[in-house]
Amino acid sequence: MSDLRFEELRGEEITYAIHRQDRTFLPSREQCPLDPTRPGGARTEIPFPSFEIAVFDNRFPAFEAPLGAAEVVVYTDDHDASFATLASERAEDLMWVWRHRYMELGAREDVDYVYIFENRGVEVGVTLHHPHGQIYGYPFLPPVPRLELEADRRLGGCAPCALLRRELDDGRRILIENDAVVVYVPYAARWAYEAHVVMRQHRASLLECEPQELRLLSSALQTLVRGYDALFDRPFPYVMAVHQAPTVAPSRPGAESAGQGHLHVEFYPPLRTGDKLKYLAGSEQGAGAFISDTLPEESAATLREAIARAG
Amino acid sequence: MSDLRFEELRGEEITYAIHRQDRTFLPSREQCPLDPTRPGGARTEIPFPSFEIAVFDNRFPAFEAPLGAAEVVVYTDDHDASFATLASERAEDLMWVWRHRYMELGAREDVDYVYIFENRGVEVGVTLHHPHGQIYGYPFLPPVPRLELEADRRLGGCAPCALLRRELDDGRRILIENDAVVVYVPYAARWAYEAHVVMRQHRASLLECEPQELRLLSSALQTLVRGYDALFDRPFPYVMAVHQAPTVAPSRPGAESAGQGHLHVEFYPPLRTGDKLKYLAGSEQGAGAFISDTLPEESAATLREAIARAG
Repeated sequence: MSDLRFEELRGEEITYAIHRQDRTFLPSREQCPLDPTRPGGARTEIPFPSFEIAVFDNRFPAFEAPLGAAEVVVYTDDHDASFATLASERAEDLMWVWRHRYMELGAREDVDYVYIFENRGVEVGVTLHHPHGQIYGYPFLPPVPRLELEADRRLGGCAPCALLRRELDDGRRILIENDAVVVYVPYAARWAYEAHVVMRQHRASLLECEPQELRLLSSALQTLVRGYDALFDRPFPYVMAVHQAPTVAPSRPGAESAGQGHLHVEFYPPLRTGDKLKYLAGSEQGAGAFISDTLPEESAATLREAIARAG
Repeated sequence: MSDLRFEELRGEEITYAIHRQDRTFLPSREQCPLDPTRPGGARTEIPFPSFEIAVFDNRFPAFEAPLGAAEVVVYTDDHDASFATLASERAEDLMWVWRHRYMELGAREDVDYVYIFENRGVEVGVTLHHPHGQIYGYPFLPPVPRLELEADRRLGGCAPCALLRRELDDGRRILIENDAVVVYVPYAARWAYEAHVVMRQHRASLLECEPQELRLLSSALQTLVRGYDALFDRPFPYVMAVHQAPTVAPSRPGAESAGQGHLHVEFYPPLRTGDKLKYLAGSEQGAGAFISDTLPEESAATLREAIARAG
């Protein structure tokens, strides 16, 4: 059902998933398809009366085997929870689920790039409020990871490693540090409250992480997201993007990129104030040039206060 | 007041225009700063009781001389008009205004790329409803024109010329044709109702167009936008992006790109149905990969009907 077309002017693959116009759109709370199936209740996507973390194929997929994958990762059976409110053990478990899916999907011949992400909030187009993320297995190497590989070449080594050193040396934009992970507003943030969550050691993917590192990654992610929610005292919308090494199979073009990367998680929040959104409009869409209203040093200071408030 | 920072991971300049947080935000109709200054009334941005087309420096600029430019182009003194409802002579005049601004700004040493655009509708973040567009003079070559130059190299000649030939040969996505201009939904459209308005002859910019071509360009643009408004019987939101050749000065890096390009106007409408928006979320923001719900051939057929209805 999916169709790929190469767009020549910008040199990118565009995906047509034409069956998705009918996908479930903001159902009532009672009709949430990501809730557990309660005894005597309607059957949901998850045929169990309770669960911890559930992963299944997206019913309205952007990609389908054997040309990629699209999965849903439900974080909890509690409709009203969020990634921030998960018990720390559950958040840690989620890192292991992500790791497993990266391994399984990445091993497939048709998946060049495994991309774990979460869209949170109607501001970024969320159609289901139940806490969940998604995983795409792209049957091509998408533009952003391609650019990150170019950055490695331009900087003559791992770009996230180099940028992490710069941020630690500068220090003004650091938000959170633990033994395994550093969180900062990047020097050249696109979004007012953009943050990058970066492994201290060079880790191409979740597969290379020690168990202790996965635990500290989940802890840093939760601390950040709790700070976000405290910032304007409201559930904070964002796109969360987990960037890892490509998984291009040896038989496919671009195979040399497999394993090259540095695990980091980028957050793109659309709010620039408590009630004003940043839109991607003329400059961003037509020229590809981001214009921001907010200096990264100032938003880092504001975010540090919010993180401290959230405790 | 503007600050440029190079973002290493994606290799792009990010612009910080930090004074813009206070910019005018959806003022009441009576306080429109783009209205004419009426006798006895409050002084607006335009100190005349009536006007045809007005161009002035943006009071909340993304760029300021001597590091670029940001201008506002008000299409008419009629607050309730739109590009679609302008008299055809006025729309033609607007092409000459665009041409003049491209020439003036492009001649500046500090302007590498002149970008004429319009954001229409609150859906793309418009803060003033009075019909107007904007012009940015970027002090660098932005990502999208850089990619278009790469496409020329990849295709071994002018990419828009090659793509226009393909569209004419295929024919299924053509919306409007006249002696100078072809309008089509591109083969690999990102947006459900994306359309490209392309000069038939190779014209690097408005400066190379014959007067008759400018007239036919304005006519095609108006026909398209009237069709858009007829599509869902409502004012149709879009980003309109005028792509022309870079204007990099001989003294600057990238000077070889000056004059290389093919004038075309791209429309990115966020609506995928009468009341549903396409959001740029996880896949588009974090991977750079567009997922569309709509086949270009189908939206072209729908748009052709709307254009016929609009007459």
